[in-house]
Formats: sequence, C-alpha cells, structure tokens
Amino acid sequence: MAAELTPHELIAKHRPTLDQALEAIRTRAYWSPHPEHPKAYGENGSLSAEEGKAAFEALLGDRVALDQPGTDAWVGGEVSPFGIDLGVTYPHADIDVLLPAMKAGQRAWRDAGAETRAMVCLEILGRISDRTHELAHAVMHTSGQAFMMAFQAGGPHAQDRGLEAVAYAYVEQVRTPDAAEWTKPQGKRDPLTLDKRFTPVPRGIALLIGCNTFPTWNGYPGLFASLATGNAVLVKPHPRAVLPLALTVRVAREVLTEAGFDPNLVALAAERPGEGIAKTLAVRPEVRIIDYTGSTAFGDWLEANARQAQVYTEKAGVNTVIVESTDNYKGMLSNLGFSLSLYSGQMCTTPQNLLIPRDGITTDAGPKSYDEVVADLAKSVGGLLGDDARANALLGAIVNPDVKARLEAASGLGEVALASREVTNPEFPEATVRTPVIVKLDGARKYWDGADDEAAYMSECFGPVSFAVAVDSAADAVQLLRRTVHEKGAMTVGAYTTSEEVAASIEEACLEECAQLSLNLTGGVYVNQTAAFSDFHGSGGNAAANAALCDGAFVANRFRVVEVRREA
Amino acid sequence: MAAELTPHELIAKHRPTLDQALEAIRTRAYWSPHPEHPKAYGENGSLSAEEGKAAFEALLGDRVALDQPGTDAWVGGEVSPFGIDLGVTYPHADIDVLLPAMKAGQRAWRDAGAETRAMVCLEILGRISDRTHELAHAVMHTSGQAFMMAFQAGGPHAQDRGLEAVAYAYVEQVRTPDAAEWTKPQGKRDPLTLDKRFTPVPRGIALLIGCNTFPTWNGYPGLFASLATGNAVLVKPHPRAVLPLALTVRVAREVLTEAGFDPNLVALAAERPGEGIAKTLAVRPEVRIIDYTGSTAFGDWLEANARQAQVYTEKAGVNTVIVESTDNYKGMLSNLGFSLSLYSGQMCTTPQNLLIPRDGITTDAGPKSYDEVVADLAKSVGGLLGDDARANALLGAIVNPDVKARLEAASGLGEVALASREVTNPEFPEATVRTPVIVKLDGARKYWDGADDEAAYMSECFGPVSFAVAVDSAADAVQLLRRTVHEKGAMTVGAYTTSEEVAASIEEACLEECAQLSLNLTGGVYVNQTAAFSDFHGSGGNAAANAALCDGAFVANRFRVVEVRREA
Repeated sequence: MAAELTPHELIAKHRPTLDQALEAIRTRAYWSPHPEHPKAYGENGSLSAEEGKAAFEALLGDRVALDQPGTDAWVGGEVSPFGIDLGVTYPHADIDVLLPAMKAGQRAWRDAGAETRAMVCLEILGRISDRTHELAHAVMHTSGQAFMMAFQAGGPHAQDRGLEAVAYAYVEQVRTPDAAEWTKPQGKRDPLTLDKRFTPVPRGIALLIGCNTFPTWNGYPGLFASLATGNAVLVKPHPRAVLPLALTVRVAREVLTEAGFDPNLVALAAERPGEGIAKTLAVRPEVRIIDYTGSTAFGDWLEANARQAQVYTEKAGVNTVIVESTDNYKGMLSNLGFSLSLYSGQMCTTPQNLLIPRDGITTDAGPKSYDEVVADLAKSVGGLLGDDARANALLGAIVNPDVKARLEAASGLGEVALASREVTNPEFPEATVRTPVIVKLDGARKYWDGADDEAAYMSECFGPVSFAVAVDSAADAVQLLRRTVHEKGAMTVGAYTTSEEVAASIEEACLEECAQLSLNLTGGVYVNQTAAFSDFHGSGGNAAANAALCDGAFVANRFRVVEVRREA
Repeated sequence: MAAELTPHELIAKHRPTLDQALEAIRTRAYWSPHPEHPKAYGENGSLSAEEGKAAFEALLGDRVALDQPGTDAWVGGEVSPFGIDLGVTYPHADIDVLLPAMKAGQRAWRDAGAETRAMVCLEILGRISDRTHELAHAVMHTSGQAFMMAFQAGGPHAQDRGLEAVAYAYVEQVRTPDAAEWTKPQGKRDPLTLDKRFTPVPRGIALLIGCNTFPTWNGYPGLFASLATGNAVLVKPHPRAVLPLALTVRVAREVLTEAGFDPNLVALAAERPGEGIAKTLAVRPEVRIIDYTGSTAFGDWLEANARQAQVYTEKAGVNTVIVESTDNYKGMLSNLGFSLSLYSGQMCTTPQNLLIPRDGITTDAGPKSYDEVVADLAKSVGGLLGDDARANALLGAIVNPDVKARLEAASGLGEVALASREVTNPEFPEATVRTPVIVKLDGARKYWDGADDEAAYMSECFGPVSFAVAVDSAADAVQLLRRTVHEKGAMTVGAYTTSEEVAASIEEACLEECAQLSLNLTGGVYVNQTAAFSDFHGSGGNAAANAALCDGAFVANRFRVVEVRREA
C-alpha cells in the first residue's frame, strides 16, 4: 500500500514549523504555533467548541478502538472528578503479543531518518491540535481541571511541549552528519581515507507512564522525544486519566499508518482496576526508556529497579516562595493568591511554603507585620474566589479523595489563616470543589500544641494547602529554602524582595541547589506556569525530578549513533 | 592575587582551536591539533624526547607533590610492566578534608561561564601536550604499552579525546542563551514580558576512576567533560597507573591557579595498596558524576550502587570479526594480524572471536579453507612479530599477571593454531612480552574433548588471545555476532566480505544490536583504533559501555541549567 502522506508532502507542510521551533529553543523568546484561545478553532479542519464537545460526548459509554495486536479484553472505569461516569473502555493488551508487534516496525522507522520522523510527529501534533476542543473535555473530565485550563494546558501548551521535544530530538540527531569522508595525511605516503556513515538508532521500546493531573502536558514530552528518536512508544496512562492519552495514541496510529509506517510504533497499555501493570512493564527487557510523572515512592522504585532502561522521572517536591519585601504589595498578593488557587493547588509547581519574616516586611504600602501579610494574602485569595462562578473556573475539581483528605487534615496542622470553603458547581453538582487553606506555621518551632510544624512544611502536601511559615530573617528564609530544596527537591521557587542583596542570596541558593526561580512576579505570569520553548520545567538537578522539560539531556540518550566505516 | 592568565588572553590563545574542534565534531572529517610524531616536540616550550625522558627519570623515587588539603600520608607502589620499580609516592587524602575543599572553588568556576572554562581546559591540555614525551614514559611504565604507542595513544590521541569532550561540553552549554527577553502578546492588553537568565550549573564533584591500560586516553574524556561543565574533578587512578594521571592533575592545578581559580577543582585520590577507596568515594553524597573504565563486575556495582551520581561506564565486551570473503586476502591478513598483535591484544577494542565459515571463504587468491585461513593468519602474525625488535615495539609488555595467566590457560581451550611465544626485551629484560595465541574453536560444538567451545568464545578473554571460530555459514556468523553483542556487548565489530548481501546483514545486526562496525579494513586503519572528532569509541547502546566517546549524551547531563526570571 502506498503511503498517503509522503515525506515530501510532510516536509513541505511541517518543515517551516520545525525550523521556527529550532529557532525558538535557541533564542528562548516567546513562540507558539498552537492558539490558546478556544475561538481560534473550528476552521481548516479543526473542531469548533461545539464539535469538540459533541465528539467528546460521543465517546462516552463506548470503546476507544485502536486495532492493537494482542487485545484480550476491554477495560476502563474512569469517573470524572466532575461526577460523570465516563463509561469508556480501552483495549487491554496481552503484553507478550503487543511488545513483539511494536518492534516489527522499528527498522523502517529508524531508516526513515530524523527529519521524516520529526515531520510525522508534527503531523500527529497537528491532528491533535485540530481536536483540541475534544481533548480539552477529555482532560477536564479526567484531571478535574476547569475547562479553560484543561483547554489551554491540556491542548496548546501540551502540544507546545511535544513539539519542543521533537525539536530537541531532531537537532540532537543531526549533530552528527549522515556521512563523512575522513582523510588522514601520512607524510609522503598516501593518506588514510575512510568513508563513514552514521545512523541514529533507537534504544527499543519506550514506556510512558502517565499521570492523573496533566495527562497530555506531562506525557507529550517523553512520548514525542522517544518517537522522534526512533523508538516505539507504549503509553501506560494513569487509570483515572486514560482518555486523553488513548485519543492521542489513536491519532498517532492513524498518522503512522497514513505515512506508511507500522501503527504499532505507538500503542496503549490500559489496565484493569488494581492491575498495576506499570511495575511489570517497567522491568521488561524490551523497555529501554521510561518517562514517569507521579509519586516519589514509585519514581524511586523505577530508578532503582528499571535498570535496563533510561528512566526520566518527575516526582514530588516542596515548593517555596520567600516573601521578604515588595514595591508592589497589591500585585504580589494578587499574583500569589492566583498561584495558590489555580487548579486547587494541584500542580507540581504550586507554591506550598510561604516564608515570611516574623518581624514583618517592607512594602510600597508601608511596613506589614507577618500577621498582616498572611491576613492580606488570605483576603486576596478570598476575594479572588469569592464569586462562585469565578471560583469554579479557577479551581476545577479536587482530583481524588486523597487530596480531599489532605486538605481536611491540613487545618489541624496549625492556626488556620484562611479556611477552605466548599464551592458548589451548578453544572456538575457532584464535583468536589474547595478553595485553598492557608495554615500558619513557625519555622523556629518544632513542637507546639502537639503539632510538629517542621514535619508539616518539610513534607509535600499536594493539593490546595499552603503554609505561611514565620522565619527569623531573610537569611533564615534562604537557609530554609536551601534545606528544603536539598532534602525534598522543588519544581519551582518564588521570591519577593526589593533588596539586591537578598535577591542575590536567593539566586545563589537556587544556583547551588539547582532550582528554577521566579522573582517578584506581580502581573499575569505565575510561578507555577512555564512556557515551552523558553522556560525549563524543573531543573533535573534536585530531588523533585531527574530531568527538565526540555533540554539536550532529555533527548540525547534516547538513541545512540552507530558508525559503519570502510576504506574509501 | 591577580590571575596570571586572564580570560582575554586565554580566549585569544585558544578560541581558534576550540572553533576548529567544534567544526570537526560537526563534519567528522580528520582533524587534530596534537602532532603524532615524537620529533614534532622540543620547541615552543614543549619537551624534546631527551627532556621528556629526563623529566620522567627525575620523577622516579620521588614524591609527586600536589599541595592538596587533607594530605595525611604518602602512598605508592607502581612497578612498571617493563620491570622498573617506579618508587613514586603520591599524597593520600583525608576525604573528609579534601571533598569540602574541592567544593570551595566551584562557585567561581561556575560563574566563569562555559567559554572561560573551555579556555582553561585547553590551556591545561596545551601544557599536557608540551609534556607529551614525559607522559609517554609515564604511560609506558604503567600500562606496559611500547613507547611509540604510549607516546601516541597516551599523548596526542588522549589529548584529542580530552579536547573533543571540551568541545562537546562547550557547545552543549551554549545551546541555551545566557539571557532572553520573552514577550507574549495579550491581544489588546499589554504583552506579558519577562527577563530570563540561564546559568549552567555543575552537578557537584565528579569522580574519575582510571584504568590500568589507558590511564590518559580513557581518563581525559570524563575529566575534561566534567571540568568544562563546571564540576570539580577527583581523579582516582588505577593503583598500577597513578603517575600519568597524577602528572595530569598537577598540570591542571597549576593552570587553575594561574587563571585565578581554586586548584582544588582538580585533585588526586591515590590509595594505599588494597585500600579500595573507589567504593567509598563512589557513594559519597558529594560525588554526583562518575566516569569509570574497567571490569564489568565493578562497573555493574557502580551502576547499581552509586545512585546519587550519573555513572558513565566502559566495561568489558566480546569483539567479533566476521571473515566471509575478501578481494584483498593479503591485506586482510596483515590488517587483522596487526590488530591482534598491537599492545598484546590488551585493548578493549581488540578482536577476540574471528568467525570463519567451516567450508572456507572466497578470496582474490582463490578459495581458502577454514584451516588455510587460520594458518595464513597465524603466518601473518608470526611474520609480523618474527623480528624481536619489531615484536617488542608492537607488543609492549603484559600488563599484569592475570593477563599472563589467561594467555597460558587459553592454549588448553582448543587446538592451537598459533602458539604464543616469549619475546625478550633487551632494554627491559624483566618485562613479560608474549605474542598472541590463536585457538581454533567450533561454533557448533558445545563439548569436545572435555572443552566447552561456547563457554570460551562467549566470555571476554582480555589479552593476546583470539579464537578462530568455525561457523556453518555467513548467516550463522551473523547470528552468532548478534547473540554475542546482545549478551556480552562489544566495543568493536569487524567484517570482511565482498557480498553486498552479507555486508547488509552484518550492518543490520550492528544497527539493531548497537555496535560500531569496521568493514573490509586492509590498509593502515585498524578495527581497534578510533580517531577523536570523527569515530565514536563504543556505542553506549550495548552491554560493553553505557556511554560513547564522545557525543551529546556524554556531556548533556553533567550540568543542569538554572533559570531566573523576573518581570521586565
């Protein structure tokens, strides 16, 4: 069967986009080919808002057929955090059939070369982009993100991160030329001359272990980095967030087929409730690359046990914001309040510990005591979320009962500066919607009324919980920041200060402990958001993650280069 | 104290060389700034042959003083494989003093930036190059390499590999700009604008665990890759090959001091006989990178246990050459014979298993039976090494008693086609010099006269031992090649064939099993030699090594990038 999509057509269509992506990762200026506004979709083959919603609704209660080899059952059981029982089922694979089938197409995929692979990846991303509205609903009803966030983070921003990974993968592979002639002078004798050919070869099968909260955003970088470097990719979604990745796999298989490649280069590994197949898959000898986002415990297990594979993990960390002084008190409060509220604090990048000097801070609105800062922040969050419609649009739903339980327990950890509030979602009355709690703790106090403040702020409390930790001084704050990043890792660090000296000491702490720092954000950029092509997500150098999105290290070891040399 | 070497001076002196190296790794054409001929030295500050020899002799029986913190004893005990008791002692370090001292200079080294670090590394390499004659003797009398090989492989070729690593490290660090302005349009509202700064930060202390046979060649890539990416480097030489790396450390410390940096950024960890400090150092929390060349057992231990570090290992493999047919029988025999003889087969790249169809091969000199091919190869090796002077110049000395024991045992493994011969070295009568043994084995025969052929050819027999393995066919040879690389790994694969079909199937095996292939070498390039800037040493994709010299993957994870962003 002739391919419907030839490399020539794909290059004509996508090479300019790849070139722009390559330029963006060099300059790290703003760039994105994926529109953020829902109204930008609906033409040129992309689904409109209504079409996307209808497409999502048509999926409910049905099978997502993928035509994968070795399908031995249909499994599923996703219930939306907004209360809908999705009723979608997915093929369950006999791994001993599926894995060998995934290897069958690898030779042709390898031989296609880096550019054609990149073009096929861009076609997949383009088709996903066309279905952004459909995927937005799928992300919303698996992660609990409110629609607008599910749309943007699960759609264009995730696609950006996928494209970024393709760009890094491409440039890494073409650093070595396809061929070289090597001529070494030998004085008066004839030179030695060799013809050399260099081929990027894949490691094998890559396993993507998806997460519940950002199935596409956290999944696409590894998926596309592995595919673009010639590997087959087995996608093992989180059991509560299968649909977005199953739709992604379906699109990838369609495009691979149309481009003349084996669709089994991308496959889905859905599981029965409680089956826990990640552990089985992770140590299969065929699996040579693993990308994982999730708990520290399982990430550590993978790093220790999946020794046959390159393991890229994003685990848990404890994110800190130092509040030392500001020349824009109102902007600081509103920026911080938004960061704490967005998606009910269920982002790996949400600040947890707010370190505030117990003697207060200086601001453009006069000196503020520790209590005042905390009260004003509580007021800011309260105001932001005072209107239920806006609260629902920002908070989304609590993703699972564990988060709810942690939230409820948090108010027992210290004095509550802002109590969590139940919000009703009129469209989805079964959704668990909660505003964040802010709890006061003391950095100098180990035991107080039976509570161990240090135990609280030195642990990740994933969800809408933050701690306003009183510290002795700026120096004490920096010291605690260092210790927290060193022992627990951090995806983000924020700081507010008007002192160049304090800023310098915070920067130095971040450089030494390897954490990404946002300084004095008071406007429309938040510490918990990073932009593809410009910001690194995580540093890969502290305990929260062993990789960053996206850099050379994220792609360079997903393939190797084989050289064949002969006399010219 | 003002630095004697300013960045400006260093850039003027070395930037053109770095630029040439960057171009060479892109084109992979022949290039080297380090002359191979001994007579090229002796001017412009470099030691002549006589000066180098005198400098080496002056070291004997003395201390190599390094002025390192925490020196608590002087240790040493190297005896040259050529029989000289070197009598050199080195500082033994109290690690709890030395490691903290090594961290003290890291901030300034980090802040110097990628270009200055590269320039300092090039100055170190330049000073090492000036001492090539001295180092040649040091390498010779620790590795047992004959002088010319010690000179070339231990001198210019090792320096090339170090420079190559610096070039890769530099280009990897400057892929991300120092700074970026990010402006995101917001429709009618003001754009979001951030100033971003990006800083490559080191992982911490890098540990180089050196090997006995190629202390500089195998050591410089990791040493310079780590140093150029901002890490401090602790050099733990093989106890039998301390001197070349101790001299290297001394030069590095001198240059660092002159350039205004802390000399403790490079330090030596010499040990007492039997102390085994590599295991202790490898799991220290300060050690975040390890480069290792040596046995599979200890490499596997490092990979399993030094989990706080990035571990780059070159371990053992079983190298294969398929002899299927040739249009240059004489050239093939002489090329292969040289490969088996060079440094008594004590290279990780020396062919071990020669797979030859039992029904013989076609050649330009007519058909040759298996027995004829083996006999002719034996004759070729015998001829090459028939003259004692030439034999000594090629073979060097047996590096340690284990190699000698393996060589002696090998003749019991099957029919001996070429017996090993003792060669007397008139200059160094105590040297153990042996010509290679070639043993006939049968790939179809598991037990024969009590010998297990398969057990022999499926194990690495490091030293001057090769097996002429009779196979059923070309297809059988390719099958055995695949299996050997898959199970045991390989640093090199060679093949002789005039059949395009056979060549294609060997190439495919090498692409799938990830091994570097040399095809039909009959002239002055040998399967066991690779050239920096052009050839990869190892693939990093089979069991013999998890890294290749040198590529992006070798450097990309030795540093991380920390971003600091703030509103513009």
